[in-house]
Formats: sequence, C-alpha cells, structure tokens
Amino acid sequence: MIWTVYLSGEIHTDWREQIKQGCEALSLPVEFTSAVTNHEASDAAGDHLGAEENSFWRDHKSSKINSIRTKNLIEQCDIAVVRFGDKYKQWNAAFDAGYLSACGKPFITLHDDNIIHPLKEVDAAAMAWAQTPEEIVEILKYVTTA
Amino acid sequence: MIWTVYLSGEIHTDWREQIKQGCEALSLPVEFTSAVTNHEASDAAGDHLGAEENSFWRDHKSSKINSIRTKNLIEQCDIAVVRFGDKYKQWNAAFDAGYLSACGKPFITLHDDNIIHPLKEVDAAAMAWAQTPEEIVEILKYVTTA
Amino acid sequence: MIWTVYLSGEIHTDWREQIKQGCEALSLPVEFTSAVTNHEASDAAGDHLGAEENSFWRDHKSSKINSIRTKNLIEQCDIAVVRFGDKYKQWNAAFDAGYLSACGKPFITLHDDNIIHPLKEVDAAAMAWAQTPEEIVEILKYVTTA
Amino acid sequence: MIWTVYLSGEIHTDWREQIKQGCEALSLPVEFTSAVTNHEASDAAGDHLGAEENSFWRDHKSSKINSIRTKNLIEQCDIAVVRFGDKYKQWNAAFDAGYLSACGKPFITLHDDNIIHPLKEVDAAAMAWAQTPEEIVEILKYVTTA
Amino acid sequence: MIWTVYLSGEIHTDWREQIKQGCEALSLPVEFTSAVTNHEASDAAGDHLGAEENSFWRDHKSSKINSIRTKNLIEQCDIAVVRFGDKYKQWNAAFDAGYLSACGKPFITLHDDNIIHPLKEVDAAAMAWAQTPEEIVEILKYVTTA
Amino acid sequence: MIWTVYLSGEIHTDWREQIKQGCEALSLPVEFTSAVTNHEASDAAGDHLGAEENSFWRDHKSSKINSIRTKNLIEQCDIAVVRFGDKYKQWNAAFDAGYLSACGKPFITLHDDNIIHPLKEVDAAAMAWAQTPEEIVEILKYVTTA
Amino acid sequence: MIWTVYLSGEIHTDWREQIKQGCEALSLPVEFTSAVTNHEASDAAGDHLGAEENSFWRDHKSSKINSIRTKNLIEQCDIAVVRFGDKYKQWNAAFDAGYLSACGKPFITLHDDNIIHPLKEVDAAAMAWAQTPEEIVEILKYVTTA
Amino acid sequence: MIWTVYLSGEIHTDWREQIKQGCEALSLPVEFTSAVTNHEASDAAGDHLGAEENSFWRDHKSSKINSIRTKNLIEQCDIAVVRFGDKYKQWNAAFDAGYLSACGKPFITLHDDNIIHPLKEVDAAAMAWAQTPEEIVEILKYVTTA
Repeated sequence: MIWTVYLSGEIHTDWREQIKQGCEALSLPVEFTSAVTNHEASDAAGDHLGAEENSFWRDHKSSKINSIRTKNLIEQCDIAVVRFGDKYKQWNAAFDAGYLSACGKPFITLHDDNIIHPLKEVDAAAMAWAQTPEEIVEILKYVTTA
Repeated sequence: MIWTVYLSGEIHTDWREQIKQGCEALSLPVEFTSAVTNHEASDAAGDHLGAEENSFWRDHKSSKINSIRTKNLIEQCDIAVVRFGDKYKQWNAAFDAGYLSACGKPFITLHDDNIIHPLKEVDAAAMAWAQTPEEIVEILKYVTTA
Repeated sequence: MIWTVYLSGEIHTDWREQIKQGCEALSLPVEFTSAVTNHEASDAAGDHLGAEENSFWRDHKSSKINSIRTKNLIEQCDIAVVRFGDKYKQWNAAFDAGYLSACGKPFITLHDDNIIHPLKEVDAAAMAWAQTPEEIVEILKYVTTA
Repeated sequence: MIWTVYLSGEIHTDWREQIKQGCEALSLPVEFTSAVTNHEASDAAGDHLGAEENSFWRDHKSSKINSIRTKNLIEQCDIAVVRFGDKYKQWNAAFDAGYLSACGKPFITLHDDNIIHPLKEVDAAAMAWAQTPEEIVEILKYVTTA
Repeated sequence: MIWTVYLSGEIHTDWREQIKQGCEALSLPVEFTSAVTNHEASDAAGDHLGAEENSFWRDHKSSKINSIRTKNLIEQCDIAVVRFGDKYKQWNAAFDAGYLSACGKPFITLHDDNIIHPLKEVDAAAMAWAQTPEEIVEILKYVTTA
Repeated sequence: MIWTVYLSGEIHTDWREQIKQGCEALSLPVEFTSAVTNHEASDAAGDHLGAEENSFWRDHKSSKINSIRTKNLIEQCDIAVVRFGDKYKQWNAAFDAGYLSACGKPFITLHDDNIIHPLKEVDAAAMAWAQTPEEIVEILKYVTTA
Repeated sequence: MIWTVYLSGEIHTDWREQIKQGCEALSLPVEFTSAVTNHEASDAAGDHLGAEENSFWRDHKSSKINSIRTKNLIEQCDIAVVRFGDKYKQWNAAFDAGYLSACGKPFITLHDDNIIHPLKEVDAAAMAWAQTPEEIVEILKYVTTA
Repeated sequence: MIWTVYLSGEIHTDWREQIKQGCEALSLPVEFTSAVTNHEASDAAGDHLGAEENSFWRDHKSSKINSIRTKNLIEQCDIAVVRFGDKYKQWNAAFDAGYLSACGKPFITLHDDNIIHPLKEVDAAAMAWAQTPEEIVEILKYVTTA
C-alpha cells in the first residue's frame, strides 16, 4: 500500500521539501499531494476567465478553481499534515483542518510551541502535533511501515 | 419550521446579540446555538478533571470537552454564521467553516472588507458574505420566511 | 406522521395553490415547502449586500442565498413535486430533480405530454409523472393515508 | 494521479473533442467520460427489449438504461464539465448538474453569456463558469498539474 | 422515546393486528407503519394516472407510487418485522429485508419453521427469528422498555 | 474502465455462462462476480466450524459466511443482474435486489413474463427488465462502450 | 435542546444512578438511555424464542435482541459515557466505544487510573476521561448549558 | 480481486503467522494488514515528539499515532479477523470490533470456547466464530475463491 499524504498550509518555507526528502531518503511508501503552492499562480487561477474590477470576485473565482483541486486531494488522502507558520492569517490551513476532521481523515499539525493556545481546537482534532519536519517523517515512517 | 442557526467565531464583540435582537424584533422562526462564549470558562473547561503542568495538555483537555458541544451543535444546525473580527488568530472559526463545508451545511461569513484576501478560501465555500449583523438578519429574514 | 412535500419549479401559474387546496380539502397529513416563489424578490435576494455592476455576480449572490433555503428544504422533505411549465428554460427545476435524485428523495414530475421527450431523463428518475394538480393530490392522498 | 473528467450536456457541437484535443496537446493527466453521445442510439437504448406503442415508455426504458452508464460515471468522476448550448431544453444537463452537486462533485459550466440568468442556480453551485473549450482546458491544466 | 416499527410482508392474514393489539394491551411505547395493505388498492395505485394496456407498465406505475410510501417509512423506522407466509412469492418482503439490511435497520423475521432453508440468507441478516406474533410482542416489550 | 457486474440469483441454469460468453465474444470491458454458485458447497460453508444439530443454526452459520463474500462483491460492483427462475423461493435474489437498491447500485432483472406481477416491486427498483441473457449482453454492450 | 446521553458499560455498581441524580439536582437538559442493565434479563433476552442446548447460540440469540435496542440508542445519542469497572472482561463496553467512534459520536470514558494503559486506545478516541460520576456531571453541565 | 484482510487483536502468539502461511500455501488472493504488532514500539510511538511525565499523556500520544495506521487499514479492509487470547484486557480488540461493525465491515472472531459468554456481544456482530487459525484459513479460502 502506498499512503497518500496531503500537505496543507504555509507556502513560504520549504517544509514540504524537507518532508519529501526525508521520506525519500527512507524509501517510505508514501506519495504527497498539495494545493498549488505558487502564491501568484494561486491568486490568479481564475484570471483567464475574465478580469474583475472587484477584488472580492477575483479572489472568489480563483479560490473556487483552487478548491476543485484541494477538495479532490483532501478527500482522496490517507493522512494530512497541516502546517501553521509564524506569518499571515493562514485561515485556509485551519479551514482544511476542519474539512479533514469532518471527513474523518487523520491529520497531524506542524507548528511551533508559541501558537499552541490559538491552535488548541485544531490540535484537539489532530492525531499528533509535531514541531519539525523531521518529526513528521518519523511519524510517517512509523505509521506506514510495520 | 424553526431554523437552527449556529453562530461561530469572535467572542469579544456583541455581534451575536445584535443578530438575536434583530431576529427577535422581526419574530423570525429561528433559534440560535453557539459554543460556550465565555473565554475563561472555555479555556478552563477541563480543569476540574485534574491540573496539568503542561499548557498543551490543559488546552487539549478543554478543547476536546468544548468539541463535544460544538460538534453536536454544528451537525444539528441548518445555517451557520462564521464571524471573523480584527483581532486574534481565530483559527477555530476557520476550522468550523471547514467542518461546516464538509458537512454540507450552508454558512455565511461576517467580516470587514479589509480581510477579504486572507479569507478567500473560506468565502469561496460560503453561501454569502455579510459585513454587518443587520445584513445577516436580512438574509435570515429572507431565507426563513417566504 | 406529517409528510413534508417540497414543491419545485414553475412560479408563474397557481399549481402550488391547487395542490395545497386539494390536500386541505381532504385534510391530508401533509405540509408544503418551496423556494421563495416571488420572482422579483428571488432575483434580488442578495442586493442588500451591495450592488453589482456585473449581472453574473448579482445573479450569483442571489442564487446562493436562495440555495440556503432550497438546499435545507430539499434535504428535509419526504416527497417532492417538480413542475415544468411551457415557458422559460426552467433549468433550476431540472437541477432540483437531479439533486433530489442523488439524495434518494422520491419525486413526482408534473408536466404536459408535449414535453415528454426532453424530460425523459428526469422522468426516468421520478417515481411518477402526473399531468394535473388533481393527480398529484390523488397520489399524495394514496401515499400518506393507508 | 489521473483525473477523471465527466463531460455532460450538449451533443450537437464538437466541444467535447475540442477539450480532449486541447488536453492531449498538453499531455494533461486526465481521462474523459460521458454519456452515450449518439442521439439516435441513446433514444433507442431500450428498443431491443421490446417495442413500445406509448412513446413515454419507450423514452422511459431508454433513459433508464442510459442512467446505468451516467450514474456510474458521474459518481466516479473527479471533475465534471456541464455544457449548455443554444438549442433544445437540455434538462438532462441541468439534472446532471443537480446530481453532481448533491454528490459533492465539483463541476464547471460551459455556456455563452446570453443564458447567464436562467442558469443562475446552476452556476451558483458550480466551481467556475467558462465560455469556451479553451478556458476549460486552461482550468484543467491548472487544476491537474502543480 | 416512541419506537417506530415497520411491518413488512404478508397481507392476507391478521398478523399485523395481533402485534398491534398485543403491544397496545401492554401500552408499549411503539407506533406501527406499513405499506398500503389493501391488495387491490395497491395494485391500482397508479391507475388514475392513465390506463395501460401492457400489464408490466400498470404494475410499474403502481409499484413506484407504492415505493414513495415504503421507502420513506422504511428509512424512518427504528425496527422492522418482515413476515413470510405460506403462500405467494413474497419477493417484496425479501426485497424490503435487503433494503433494511443495507440501511442498517435491525429487523426481525416472522415465519414458520418449514421455510427456514429458503429464508436462510434473510434470517442471517435479521436480529431475530420469531414464529408467532406473540413472540414479536415479547421482543418489542423487552427492547422498548427497560 | 472495466465494469464490474455482479450476477445474483438462480444457480440451476447456465444463464451466467451465457452472459459471460456473450460478453467475451464481444470483448466487452466487463468482469463478473457472484456468490458461490455451488449449491452444496454454499449450504455447507460453515460446517467445518463444528456440526449443528439444529438445521436453523447450520443454515445460519453458512449464510453468514456466504454474506462475507456477497456483501463485499455487491458493494463493489458497478452493475448487477438479478435472475429469477421458475423454481424455488429465490428470496435471496430478492434480498440482493433490495440491498442493491438501498446501496444505489443499478441492477437489471432477468426473468420470464409469467412472473411480472409478483416481481413488480423488484422491477420498479430496477433500471431494466430483460427476458434473455442475450438481452443482458446487449445492455452491457451499450452501457460499457460508447 | 434536550441532550441524549447514552450510558454504556458496567452494570454492577450504581454509577448510572449517581450521574442521573447529579444531573437532576442541577436540572440539566439531558435524558439518559442505556442497554437493559438487568444482567439476568439481558442474558435471557432470547429464551422465549425457544431453548438452546448450545450456550453459544443462547448467547447469540440474546445478544442480537439486545443489539436491536443498543444500536438504536447509540445511533440516536448526542453524547455517551462508557464505564469500565474493575471486574469482568467488559468487552461489550469497549465494543460500544468502537461503534460510537466510527459513528462520530463523542464519548467520555469513566474509569480508575489503574487501567489507563489497557484502555489507551479507547481513551485516545474519547473526548474526555473522568474518574468519578461527579466529574461526568460537571462535564455534562458545562456542555449542555452555556 | 485481491481481498484485504485486517488482523486485529492479540500480539503475543503467532496466530497471524499461521493464517498467513496457511493462505500462502493455498495461494489465496488475499493480503494482510494489521496494527504495529511490536508491543514496545507501539507503546513508544509518540515518544519522539517529546517526553511526558504523566503516563496518561504518553499513552495518549502513542495511541493516537497508532490510530492513524489502524483507522486507515480498518476502513480499507474487506474482511477482518479479531483475535482474543487468554491474557490481558484486550479492549483494543473489542474496540476494533465495534468500529468494524459500525463501518459495515464483516469480521470473524477467533477465540477459545471458554470466553464465549463475555464475548457474546462481539460474536453477535461477527459473521463467524472460529477457534483455530486453520478454520480462519478455511473460511478465507471459501470466501475468496469460487
């Protein structure tokens, strides 16, 4: 069995790459999926369907197109990792966590200990809290190989 | 039919009261539910089960007890309003929105226009975006009376 | 048991009233629900959230607000009647029929025999095809009283 | 991952071919499914089970056999495109859209801007509205390759 | 709590009445539902929608109208009793049992011991096999009162 | 796509073989599944777990072991054919039809016209009624190849 | 809203009564359900359907009749409390916990701290662990009143 | 079709190996999955995420990580075998059985006849009770080959 791991959240650091490389080094039976992580491309996902003067509708169009991808990948994953960094609102990461929870998909949070309190509801629904990509790799190694 | 409306999010302003009073003034067929909105009580929900030295576990215990209430109320509502204010991380509100979305529960966001961009994924899954409690009352009036 | 009957489709003739009066005359254990059937009000459902220059977005906002009502009522009904008249596109009626079908809700179509062929996929998913409100009343009488 | 894209609706123009060729030219990881698009074959799908004098039952038998195919393909797709042309009632396309919506399958509508208003409920449930097959290809490219 | 008990199957003996009277005598918290049990009325359920020359379609129309009632009542019951008598094919009773089983509704079979072998698949999915209405009443008494 | 077709019902004639050979001759993209069709083996499926004096429990044990196979195969099929012959009670076939119906799996009945009336509820839930294996092959050909 | 609380597990001490009295003293909006807690009656639930020589089948019949009650009550509860005492195997309590977990029903465990380790999988799926009926009452008070 | 068989329960004897070897000897189309069966590794699954002074939280962290694996494997299996030995509490095995039951996954219990009575609720939800690994192999052979 190949385990599909959805990587949600922060797109400004290389945590996804670290996890992928760590798993590759161990030849773990995992494959990774995620939203489009190019910020500019993501914001512009709907632009080719016609320009919008109102930024709300520009965001709306792009977000819905992004959701075609993310909804499918979330519903098809076996495990998810949801990463919260120290910048930006990151409401989309929390939204993904809620969606994962309602779908019954086990997820692991990845964040520093200085944001434990505001993330308490998200962590309460998670199966584990990790602080580094190395810990995530360790969990994936344990879970996917027996 | 009495419509059950779950009010999620910000607990530091009186937006819930404004919506309730507005609906009451119109005698709308709605009833409201929400998480425990007393911040201190919510943080301490698990304290009576034994003290924890580690704040992660204190938060964990309290959040899980809170989730007994919120999970039930979210799954039993007909409509939800998810409010994002201008302070704090509010990841629990975004988590609720994701949970509602996966459950197929229609929800309305309530927030100012200066946070449109970070909320774009949440708004894309919402059935409407309102900026004031009055607008929410107007929507509820329209939806619940024909 | 009170049976909830959702009345979907055409809003320009009085077929809903005929069914309601027929059922009332027989004191059937039924209650009726439907979308907002005032055409102008329905088109304007989102106007109070701010004007839109682009008619696509005006329609979009109003339709989503209407869907808060219709989605709830469709998912809570026991039986639906879907009416196709001889004017307009009536794609919303066919959309409702598809939604009902996927939800496993039994529905009855109400239409003249000159549109049998274009409605064949909808009729194939229906539990009955009626041509007059009187026939609908007869079916409801049979189904809800034993 | 190969994405399965269900193409629903109009069968009298070559929009399906345009999308397929566009995706093939880009080597996108997609495969396409659809109902039987040969109009005469579709209408006659049940004829071999015995002739019917009443056209309602002929249509009924054929539509149900067609639904064996379409129901399976819709429930197994990842994305759907629902095309509305400028002729015919096309209630089956709207029915498919409603079915897709209730199944939680993201779909994109493809239609000209002169039918925005009658399609507003369908578009409100869609993840995007496109006006040309090229735009559909662009969306599929974005969604399926990161 | 009032328990809803669906009574499925044989319509030519008074087993339903015996169960109802037995439960009434004990004032059990149960209410009973069932298909239309008037054989002629059931066969003619669709006749008012227009005569059919072909008996297959007459049966088809009536059965579908009957299914509006039975599908709703089966999906809303808490317990079902499925009765097999010594006459007729009674495939509708076995069909109901299969439907109940897939819905996760607990059901009890009621039949003589001379048809144990042909009913083995049905009994294997049942929660109990009873031979008399009195035994059914005894089970309902036990299950619904503590 | 390979379509999985579950063949349910009568085990005393060679209808399964006829369908398989017909599909093979046409190289249709189908694979077939079914219960264990060896009558003696099926009745004895649980015997190796210990002898039973009471025939009810012998049947019970065997039927439950058979259901491990049939439940899995029914829930994994895309289409089913349910065959009713002219002998025996065949309640297991009707049970399968009810189970398929509740699971939303499209099925086709295969039976002679002299049992139309007792099968009316089953046929009403079916997507087609065929009288010969050749007709089944024709339907499968139409449905699985476009 | 009245919250339905299912009380599962140990039947040899008065923990159920303590919880009920504690909630009654506080007039909490809760109602309680549970399996038949009379041990002898529970073991004999199927005896009236005929004596069994083999104790396995006696237990089997009684357990299935008990499951008609417990399955319904578990699936209809809002919250459950699962109690593990210091005697007996109590596999039915752990079975209920697994069933509740898969149904997405929040449950609270009630047990002493000397069995933390063998209950770790059950506690990991629970929303809280309490050691006394008083703590359960405190949780119910918090969760059901805001 | 390859059948996936989840092996749950006792980890101190070689019953898993016996079943695997028996199936391999017969070249059955089965593959096996299970929780991590190394007791020490399982208890320490969360240790790398940080030490816990309180043994409840150490168990909690490890159990949740283990559940990422077991929940996935249980929900993806076709059949399960749940083994109860003569030592330890084995509540996790009973928990798995309850979870399997609510998911509609057929399972077989494997235990000696001296624990029939305490396992009666679990056995009542099982499709078969076996006493030796050889009997399990026999069932798997029968179910997976026709």
